[in-house]
Amino acid sequence: MTPRVREILGWYGADNAGTLTNLARLLNHGRLAGTGKLVILPVDQGFEHGPARSFAPNPPAYNPHYHFELAIEAGCSAYAAPLGFLEAGARDFAGDIPLILKANDSDMLREVGDPNQALTASVQDALRLGCCAIGFTIYPGSAHQLEMFGQLRAYAEEARRNGLAVVVWSYPRGSGLSKEGESAIDVVGYAVQIAAQLGAHIIKVKLPTAHIEQAAARKVYEERGIPIATPVERVRHIVECAFAGRRIVIFSGGAAVLDDGTLLDEVRAIHAGGGFGSIIGRNSFQRPKGEAIRMLGAAMEIYASTIVRPSAGKALR
Amino acid sequence: MTPRVREILGWYGADNAGTLTNLARLLNHGRLAGTGKLVILPVDQGFEHGPARSFAPNPPAYNPHYHFELAIEAGCSAYAAPLGFLEAGARDFAGDIPLILKANDSDMLREVGDPNQALTASVQDALRLGCCAIGFTIYPGSAHQLEMFGQLRAYAEEARRNGLAVVVWSYPRGSGLSKEGESAIDVVGYAVQIAAQLGAHIIKVKLPTAHIEQAAARKVYEERGIPIATPVERVRHIVECAFAGRRIVIFSGGAAVLDDGTLLDEVRAIHAGGGFGSIIGRNSFQRPKGEAIRMLGAAMEIYASTIVRPSAGKALR
Amino acid sequence: MTPRVREILGWYGADNAGTLTNLARLLNHGRLAGTGKLVILPVDQGFEHGPARSFAPNPPAYNPHYHFELAIEAGCSAYAAPLGFLEAGARDFAGDIPLILKANDSDMLREVGDPNQALTASVQDALRLGCCAIGFTIYPGSAHQLEMFGQLRAYAEEARRNGLAVVVWSYPRGSGLSKEGESAIDVVGYAVQIAAQLGAHIIKVKLPTAHIEQAAARKVYEERGIPIATPVERVRHIVECAFAGRRIVIFSGGAAVLDDGTLLDEVRAIHAGGGFGSIIGRNSFQRPKGEAIRMLGAAMEIYASTIVRPSAGKALR
Amino acid sequence: MTPRVREILGWYGADNAGTLTNLARLLNHGRLAGTGKLVILPVDQGFEHGPARSFAPNPPAYNPHYHFELAIEAGCSAYAAPLGFLEAGARDFAGDIPLILKANDSDMLREVGDPNQALTASVQDALRLGCCAIGFTIYPGSAHQLEMFGQLRAYAEEARRNGLAVVVWSYPRGSGLSKEGESAIDVVGYAVQIAAQLGAHIIKVKLPTAHIEQAAARKVYEERGIPIATPVERVRHIVECAFAGRRIVIFSGGAAVLDDGTLLDEVRAIHAGGGFGSIIGRNSFQRPKGEAIRMLGAAMEIYASTIVRPSAGKALR
Amino acid sequence: MTPRVREILGWYGADNAGTLTNLARLLNHGRLAGTGKLVILPVDQGFEHGPARSFAPNPPAYNPHYHFELAIEAGCSAYAAPLGFLEAGARDFAGDIPLILKANDSDMLREVGDPNQALTASVQDALRLGCCAIGFTIYPGSAHQLEMFGQLRAYAEEARRNGLAVVVWSYPRGSGLSKEGESAIDVVGYAVQIAAQLGAHIIKVKLPTAHIEQAAARKVYEERGIPIATPVERVRHIVECAFAGRRIVIFSGGAAVLDDGTLLDEVRAIHAGGGFGSIIGRNSFQRPKGEAIRMLGAAMEIYASTIVRPSAGKALR
Repeated sequence: MTPRVREILGWYGADNAGTLTNLARLLNHGRLAGTGKLVILPVDQGFEHGPARSFAPNPPAYNPHYHFELAIEAGCSAYAAPLGFLEAGARDFAGDIPLILKANDSDMLREVGDPNQALTASVQDALRLGCCAIGFTIYPGSAHQLEMFGQLRAYAEEARRNGLAVVVWSYPRGSGLSKEGESAIDVVGYAVQIAAQLGAHIIKVKLPTAHIEQAAARKVYEERGIPIATPVERVRHIVECAFAGRRIVIFSGGAAVLDDGTLLDEVRAIHAGGGFGSIIGRNSFQRPKGEAIRMLGAAMEIYASTIVRPSAGKALR
Repeated sequence: MTPRVREILGWYGADNAGTLTNLARLLNHGRLAGTGKLVILPVDQGFEHGPARSFAPNPPAYNPHYHFELAIEAGCSAYAAPLGFLEAGARDFAGDIPLILKANDSDMLREVGDPNQALTASVQDALRLGCCAIGFTIYPGSAHQLEMFGQLRAYAEEARRNGLAVVVWSYPRGSGLSKEGESAIDVVGYAVQIAAQLGAHIIKVKLPTAHIEQAAARKVYEERGIPIATPVERVRHIVECAFAGRRIVIFSGGAAVLDDGTLLDEVRAIHAGGGFGSIIGRNSFQRPKGEAIRMLGAAMEIYASTIVRPSAGKALR
Repeated sequence: MTPRVREILGWYGADNAGTLTNLARLLNHGRLAGTGKLVILPVDQGFEHGPARSFAPNPPAYNPHYHFELAIEAGCSAYAAPLGFLEAGARDFAGDIPLILKANDSDMLREVGDPNQALTASVQDALRLGCCAIGFTIYPGSAHQLEMFGQLRAYAEEARRNGLAVVVWSYPRGSGLSKEGESAIDVVGYAVQIAAQLGAHIIKVKLPTAHIEQAAARKVYEERGIPIATPVERVRHIVECAFAGRRIVIFSGGAAVLDDGTLLDEVRAIHAGGGFGSIIGRNSFQRPKGEAIRMLGAAMEIYASTIVRPSAGKALR
Repeated sequence: MTPRVREILGWYGADNAGTLTNLARLLNHGRLAGTGKLVILPVDQGFEHGPARSFAPNPPAYNPHYHFELAIEAGCSAYAAPLGFLEAGARDFAGDIPLILKANDSDMLREVGDPNQALTASVQDALRLGCCAIGFTIYPGSAHQLEMFGQLRAYAEEARRNGLAVVVWSYPRGSGLSKEGESAIDVVGYAVQIAAQLGAHIIKVKLPTAHIEQAAARKVYEERGIPIATPVERVRHIVECAFAGRRIVIFSGGAAVLDDGTLLDEVRAIHAGGGFGSIIGRNSFQRPKGEAIRMLGAAMEIYASTIVRPSAGKALR
Repeated sequence: MTPRVREILGWYGADNAGTLTNLARLLNHGRLAGTGKLVILPVDQGFEHGPARSFAPNPPAYNPHYHFELAIEAGCSAYAAPLGFLEAGARDFAGDIPLILKANDSDMLREVGDPNQALTASVQDALRLGCCAIGFTIYPGSAHQLEMFGQLRAYAEEARRNGLAVVVWSYPRGSGLSKEGESAIDVVGYAVQIAAQLGAHIIKVKLPTAHIEQAAARKVYEERGIPIATPVERVRHIVECAFAGRRIVIFSGGAAVLDDGTLLDEVRAIHAGGGFGSIIGRNSFQRPKGEAIRMLGAAMEIYASTIVRPSAGKALR
């Protein structure tokens, strides 16, 4: 157990030993074991975007075993997927990599202004499949947000009672937000805060832009001169919004497949800004496995490098 | 236990021995026992379309015993029906044929743009009636889809905990889809993926057309040159969408009663494309029993023939 | 136990001994005991239409004891009523007549195009009151139909687990049906099928007219030449729709109070068409008791007479 | 135990000894003990109308102890109030007066055409506070009526299983009724019947007017010549609607504060018509305590006087 | 135990010893221990308004430990916050200060005319985190008010069964109220009454204005000459609305950050009017800690001063 991992576990004083053990498993697995950084492979796009759009660019990815293999070979910290994908390999790869069961999902066969998610797996499913954590998506800003918050609350309570960790995908969406607002710095910061207040151990958001969506927030950002001009500053602000860095925040890239230079620049910004890592889906499994492993390796190299860490909000006790 | 059945059971590593036993019962019954192929008789049309439209073309079919008898005499793999029909014969034909209890149904007394289903039976009903599996319909694309996904999740969890298999009828429907889109290749592929991610052991879809419904999907199909021109190619693609062939996908014909030549051509395409079989309702029970047995026999003959099987996504372990 | 009752019980092979015992109690009570026919007194009109409209024509009927007495003295097979009416006499008349607890009801203080029912009693209530069965109303065709089907499913499962029988009032209603369509032959046949598929032991419908509501059904009725011109033919068709006569179907008259000649003609048609009996409410309790007993006696006389019974769908085992 | 109380208890043959005991407590307490008549003090106006409108006319009434004291000193049969008011005095006045816990309530901060109520207390609350009964309001005629009926069903079942009595406030309301219709004789009679069918032991309604709201009802009232011209006749009719007098019906006055002459005239009409008593809220606690006690005493005097009682529907056994 | 605290506990006679113990903990902690007054630090603004708007004015406040420290060092009676903030420090500061777990919350990413809250924590969470009470927000006047009342009912029942106290934030809101009406004297008085009737031990409202919102209320305020011209009179009236002072009512300031003079004037008015204290969030944590401690100290000084207490509604027993 490295001092850094021990420090991070110390932020979760209200959790039982079971949940801390599973958090430790995530932090102590793969290439980044012990560094306090995470690179997670998530593959829920088959559900979220459809199989052809997700897997035709790299056909071996239709096979659920492929993703277990990719995550293991690349040295990822964990592999996250919906129920079906995990059931299709949990016994075959038992013990090889920490698993995160996505417990809710939505699809694109019906697109609506105020999205919602279906409950697609249970905490009990996560336990029987040997997972370390559940994953849960919320859409702050959607007309259905209060329902999703309540569902997350119930799932999170059951998960932590059973010694699992809780990873929240916090994606602002809904008819009350502009398209640009979904990745606005104020909105993403708000989404991180909500997830943290709902009890998330790990929070996943998109890298925010410098746009400010809400007038009441703009006033504060300007008056206080909060620095948000560069990606590093924005990451730093988002981490601050996660209980002054006392909750693990990881980032995904934009919606489109990026060239590796841009992607690794984002990783550098996340690292420099005190972010805890990346969750890289389409940019990894939609290319040949060898390329993906090289790219993920490059990202992990960056996260493994030493930098002066912006200190997390200090523990007073 | 044939090697093929053993191979198929190997894809369901997360299931308990009870569920594997019931999957084996389905795969080891009737004319196609041991081949890895299935021909199932489904009779939910009394509920779905009304009794006169369903049974007047062949009046003995009003009698629930008729369908047990037909499925048994024809050597089908299983018989699937709603609660009432199974209750009316489960004791009389106990042990004669694997049963699948349809756990939700809808009717045509009220047609709506975004259809939904009523829960009409429970997992406990399936257990007390000696069934091997529950059947559950979802309408991906309907405004009620998330509710149905959540209901399926709960039913599937209870079913597999009790050692039953889960068969999902995945029918795209709803105001967001064109009529043509309900059987579009991209939409049916998506529907298969959703059912598989929700934990289905066996997935039933309609034979898709070459139409592509969603613009974002069309782009991928064209760029990647996914072959979908012939029925065989389309079946192959659908099977690929079911975890690279590691989930059992079976097909129904179109909505209308077909001439046998067309129907058997479809069966040949399903077989050649790596599909796992057919579910044949109206084309079997809406004709005299002798004719139906001959037709079903012909279909099974095709499925029993040896062809070079497109290999399912390989097991990495 | 007469052979006919034994035959009828044989249709319910999936039920436990408790439910069969209660079905037998209904079939072996009163003037028609052992004949396989039923005449039931239902008194839910106080709830459904209001007390003055229901009971002012025969003021002793305001008293809940009156209906117990009427059913007993007339030799009815059973008495069906909502919770309050049964609670008001269940101890006083304990053991005197089989009781059916109506478990849902609606009223006419608020009329809507798509009616629904309130749950007004539980299966547990039926058990503590010594009932043989629960009664449950569904409105196939209403916008609320799926909800009612699901409620019936849950009630029926609990009822049969506890050894009670399930009587379903299946009344097509709703904004998608014309007024004439509510009693159309195709619609009533469909309503019977739905109730049977939902697990009803006994199904109550209105005597249908020769009207055909749905275009898709009309095509079949005409092509197949299904005889529906006379009341006897229509009853025969409805019985066929109830699993080829393997479910008990009973009939109510029209909405208005009939003259006795018309009413007894209907009874003769039901009897001749293979129907299992009548449920006669307003035509019995809205007249002086003596008259009611004479009329009910005349109806029972008809049902007790021997006719060549159209054979129910034969048991294959 | 007086013969009259014994007779009344005899109407509730389906109830367990616990519930009969609590009904007896209500009938055997205070000035009217043993007479079969009840005068109940209800104080839910703080919730229903707000504190200033309710208590400013007599400021000591802001104090929850005041109402316990008033009910006790006046010799009322029981005191009914929401959770907070009962919690504020149940220990202090334990055993001094039968308590009825109002289990649902609504307020006037948001007025709507189709009112509903919030569940504000549980049966378990009533048990831990030492209550004899729960009180429950329904609004027959509201768009939310079926939901309220279902809630009452569940509460009533739990209450009687635990030996409590059930008092139903049955107030016709909703967009389908005219304002005048809310107190129409046919509508109030209907409301009483619904409450009785739902299993109420005691039913509270408003004194009806001679107005007839529903056309179908008007026809019956006119054809049968039901006498409803005088208050006495209307009370008699309402009592008839309550299972021919075999359920306890009590009455409240109109909405406004009445002069005592009018109020006592109403009491005389209720008594003469065979009503079982009054529930007097604003007319008692919105005046000085001494005056209130005198007025309540005068009302009880009337109820205690001997009159020839219109016989309740006779018990047949 | 001071006589005053003993007196206050005496108002809660229906509660078990566990709940009284936790109420005593709140009343016996910090600078105001034993005085019967409370100053509570609430920090739910991160959820309610977003992190930047809440914490950027005083960046150390991003850190959840900061607020524990502030509440402890200032000598507050308790610290109230959502799940995430309490989880982040409950072990570190175990036993240092009474905690109140906000069990529901809402955000400003989606603003609606009729607000609602999401359930964000459970009673079980409060128990495992060592809290003395749960906090629950209701919006009387919102279209969702009945749902929130029902949720509060269930939470409060579970909380008091487990020996916790219940603190209700009662904020009138909704499309039926004018903006001015949200803090109108009649509306705030009504909101206090509702919370008290729902079983709250402690009620938090905003300081009301002299505006009267509802016409029916205005009539009473004018006729009875209820004094509401000054803040002291309005506080006195609000306390009267809380069961004549037999429930603890505390107040928050207005929406904006106040200058200290105004804030302390409000505190003086609350104290003089018989209010039980203040809940001070943004005015304390949005300034440097030293300033906040001085300001909170000044407020506590005022509450600790002796004044002639308007006697609470006298206990009759």
